[in-house]
Amino acid sequence: MYPYQQLYTFTKNVFQSIGCPEADADLATEVLLSADLRGIDSHGVARLIGYVRLWENKRINAQPNVRVVYETPSTAVVDGDGGLGLVVAPQAMDIAIRKAQIAGTGWVSVKNSNHYGIAGYHAMKALPHDMIGLAMTNASPLVAPTNSLERLLGTNPIAVAIPANEQPAFVADFATTTAANGKLEMLQRKSQAAPLGWIQKADGSNSINADELKAGGALMPLGGETGSHKGYCLGAVVDIFSAVLSGANYGPWVPPFVSFLPLAADPVGEGIGHFFGAMQIDAFRPATEFKAHMDNWITTFRNSRAKSPDTPVLIPGDPERVTAEKRLTEGIPLLEPVVKDLESLAQKFNLTF
Amino acid sequence: MYPYQQLYTFTKNVFQSIGCPEADADLATEVLLSADLRGIDSHGVARLIGYVRLWENKRINAQPNVRVVYETPSTAVVDGDGGLGLVVAPQAMDIAIRKAQIAGTGWVSVKNSNHYGIAGYHAMKALPHDMIGLAMTNASPLVAPTNSLERLLGTNPIAVAIPANEQPAFVADFATTTAANGKLEMLQRKSQAAPLGWIQKADGSNSINADELKAGGALMPLGGETGSHKGYCLGAVVDIFSAVLSGANYGPWVPPFVSFLPLAADPVGEGIGHFFGAMQIDAFRPATEFKAHMDNWITTFRNSRAKSPDTPVLIPGDPERVTAEKRLTEGIPLLEPVVKDLESLAQKFNLTF
Repeated sequence: MYPYQQLYTFTKNVFQSIGCPEADADLATEVLLSADLRGIDSHGVARLIGYVRLWENKRINAQPNVRVVYETPSTAVVDGDGGLGLVVAPQAMDIAIRKAQIAGTGWVSVKNSNHYGIAGYHAMKALPHDMIGLAMTNASPLVAPTNSLERLLGTNPIAVAIPANEQPAFVADFATTTAANGKLEMLQRKSQAAPLGWIQKADGSNSINADELKAGGALMPLGGETGSHKGYCLGAVVDIFSAVLSGANYGPWVPPFVSFLPLAADPVGEGIGHFFGAMQIDAFRPATEFKAHMDNWITTFRNSRAKSPDTPVLIPGDPERVTAEKRLTEGIPLLEPVVKDLESLAQKFNLTF
Repeated sequence: MYPYQQLYTFTKNVFQSIGCPEADADLATEVLLSADLRGIDSHGVARLIGYVRLWENKRINAQPNVRVVYETPSTAVVDGDGGLGLVVAPQAMDIAIRKAQIAGTGWVSVKNSNHYGIAGYHAMKALPHDMIGLAMTNASPLVAPTNSLERLLGTNPIAVAIPANEQPAFVADFATTTAANGKLEMLQRKSQAAPLGWIQKADGSNSINADELKAGGALMPLGGETGSHKGYCLGAVVDIFSAVLSGANYGPWVPPFVSFLPLAADPVGEGIGHFFGAMQIDAFRPATEFKAHMDNWITTFRNSRAKSPDTPVLIPGDPERVTAEKRLTEGIPLLEPVVKDLESLAQKFNLTF
């Protein structure tokens, strides 16, 4: 177990070592480690070395000038200037929140960014403002649309955070594939098989090999055999809102997260894209009324009869919140390959881990 | 095959027979029959008798005063006054579009409404305005959340319509369950079995009996064994946006579509709820640029290598558009039980079918 504070200090030092200003390093660290705290191990410090490699390949600008390039009362397009998504995304979400304070809602599409950690972090920024938050991002093409052999979409997550009163907030955060690529990465690190329905081979048939993507395979959209067209729809909507609206790369042109893969020779936009939304509850009905009904919604669902006492009915966000409370006090477990990566970063930048 | 015009005239006459003003009868007919045209047979004239029964049970107001009860520059709450969702929904979507013309985007949550036909119709209203359209609705509780034995959510569909230039628009329209209830209704009418993963029994185990819901079973959220929590998240978001934001009934309190089931004794809101969105493309980037990139997106995906030449890669909306073109000229097929229902309506209202 690694104490949160130890990982925080180390991660911040790494971001400062690649040239991030201190405030950006703090922000990037908070966003990145929110994944480790919430139990989404694939998106946390396990990816720190990936961000560093992107920076080494000059695919990340450590000192970006993040700016609004177009806006209306309820919308904006943000140019992330090639910065860390971990830094660009919270700024873009803040803009959505400010718009919502004035126009009722705010919607921000972002271009020229990079991977932004967990979508849930950004959506949850709306909660203290009594707003509903939304966050989406496109990502490296790993997913074959229904009926296709080609990898044309990322795992393209959607997060929605909704405030309640006495109950903890509702926080949905999920990839639009059967499984997030991060979950596959964890299986790869542990050399374990993947459940059927997650992956297809290069010829389109089913596979349980977690390394199948290296042999031309693809992840499958949410929905499985009889419903993958719905996951394809969702992933496509995320891609279009994040990138076609903003002017980022979309579909197969989205830049890869791994630095050893080449960038597309014929980009259709700039960097990767995100999409954020903030809706002021008071723009619809008094927030106190809404939040009282959310408490009722949440307790009704949580207290419904479960199939088994071992698997109670959960509210989206329950498992991640419980994990975060636990890990903040007990520390964060890291897999051996992740520890090795962090040790190599310590050596590279002459830091203590 | 029944010519569109024949069904149109008959359906309009039925709506006028229950007291709808002529303009509303036209609107309700156009919305209802858009389902038959687009091949979503479950949501078209097959449901006409259901609407009439709701009206007979005084659960539908044929002459509603649909009005905005609260608004900000980019939001509104609409009270449907117990009207047909087929009439309330297009009016609410028009309000979203008008807001988007001024504020960049428009978002409308609706209470005190009824079932509104296919979500796709409403989302597509945004297309001629060079806007992206969104439509959602909650519905009668038939779906058990992940791990639950209780029916707490409707099939809660989501539709997203996105304009292109030379290519037909992207139109996603899907229930957040493995299968829409309408598809189950069609299996019931044909006495066919349902695929595994659609339905659970009263004890939570899997079922292929299309009539299982009558024995206490439930529909399952999109995603199947390893991913139904994602469909549960989506259905929950639709329920909250449509009803907790507007003040409609949510979760198990949503009024049933079938008139023989009682209304909840302790309603938590008024009627059923919808949620609509319109986003002006020009509020993000010039619509001409966006639509040219949409053409590129669509052709890239459609022309990708298919698993089999018999199952080409489709763009959301492709099958429905092709069906609509065909049925508009060749007519609409109706199942025998549906024809019988229409004949009984003809008799009831002294109309010709």
